[in-house]
Amino acid sequence: MRISELSRRTGVPVATIKFYLREGLLPAGTPTGRNQAQYDEFHERRLLFIRALTGIGELELSTVSGLLSAIEQRNSLPALYRAANRAAQPHLDTTKTVNDVVPERTDVDRFIADLGWQVNADVPGRERLAQVLASLRELGCGFGVDFFRPYAELAEGFAAQQLSMIPEEGQVDGAAAVARAVLLDVAIAALCGMAQEHLVAKRFGKSN
Amino acid sequence: MRISELSRRTGVPVATIKFYLREGLLPAGTPTGRNQAQYDEFHERRLLFIRALTGIGELELSTVSGLLSAIEQRNSLPALYRAANRAAQPHLDTTKTVNDVVPERTDVDRFIADLGWQVNADVPGRERLAQVLASLRELGCGFGVDFFRPYAELAEGFAAQQLSMIPEEGQVDGAAAVARAVLLDVAIAALCGMAQEHLVAKRFGKSN
Repeated sequence: MRISELSRRTGVPVATIKFYLREGLLPAGTPTGRNQAQYDEFHERRLLFIRALTGIGELELSTVSGLLSAIEQRNSLPALYRAANRAAQPHLDTTKTVNDVVPERTDVDRFIADLGWQVNADVPGRERLAQVLASLRELGCGFGVDFFRPYAELAEGFAAQQLSMIPEEGQVDGAAAVARAVLLDVAIAALCGMAQEHLVAKRFGKSN
Repeated sequence: MRISELSRRTGVPVATIKFYLREGLLPAGTPTGRNQAQYDEFHERRLLFIRALTGIGELELSTVSGLLSAIEQRNSLPALYRAANRAAQPHLDTTKTVNDVVPERTDVDRFIADLGWQVNADVPGRERLAQVLASLRELGCGFGVDFFRPYAELAEGFAAQQLSMIPEEGQVDGAAAVARAVLLDVAIAALCGMAQEHLVAKRFGKSN
């Protein structure tokens, strides 16, 4: 198909497609003339992937580019999930976070060990959890890390549910796994927000 | 205390504090001289709140400013939760999302009704969930909305756990409720990310 048809099918403007071609996010089409090229379903799928992850997934284009490289290199599924996880939860800008987070880091490490979770030392969630605890303590509305135990069990339920979609046998579709990992995070946040609004309204009324 | 002491206690640079004063995010101190003013614990708490929500909470300063207004106007708790929810999950940039989302919107409305969730028509999660479903369908790895049912039950568990922290009686601390709502979202995402890495490693090995 020509670039105009590719644009029509994906909803991505021609100028944006040309930008992706220049930036190497999209491989060149097959030349059919001096200024024309043919594109195929691979290009279409790739564009839909980029649009999904930069749109509803709200990732930066550079982050999506990194994920595409990881998929093309046929990285293992654990590596792809780690990449998707780090894309959705980048390392924190430490100039804006709490400095005195040492006790909370120890608490979080112990908490993760108690859960039996085998996660890398540099998993972003570790520091994020410690920062949440330290911030709430500073604000005078903190609590101990064990408050998170039921949350952790629910999180494992989410993860198990998501993993149940991956077939036991056969080739895993890396792009599908990454897209689901990123977009299901968005879905979880959406569901948590709605559940909260529902329960708050139920308890306190819909006033105001 | 003087501005230098306020900066030392909160870790917020003096220049940033002066910026917040100019922008009205922080009320002026009590003047004690031509170029000096005294600040108190109210200023300290307010600065810690701003730092927590712009730092680990990753909200824009303008969004935090809106939340502070809602807190100062002593909005009801449901209104504060709605504001916090919309701050963490702003409305989507529709130029970057899927256009053909009509069937998914109907599915999501039916799904929410089935759950018995009483949420406003404009709750951002509604459109976000529909966009996730439509994007995954377009990518060829979609599923029906009922896939989310166990997720929804887990989300209600999260919300109930969070609400259990609010005392039944007495004055609710609006700032604490908002800070917890925003930061617990961060904590949930962190826990989900770690649970996923753990289960993926358990099933597929830590290779690569």
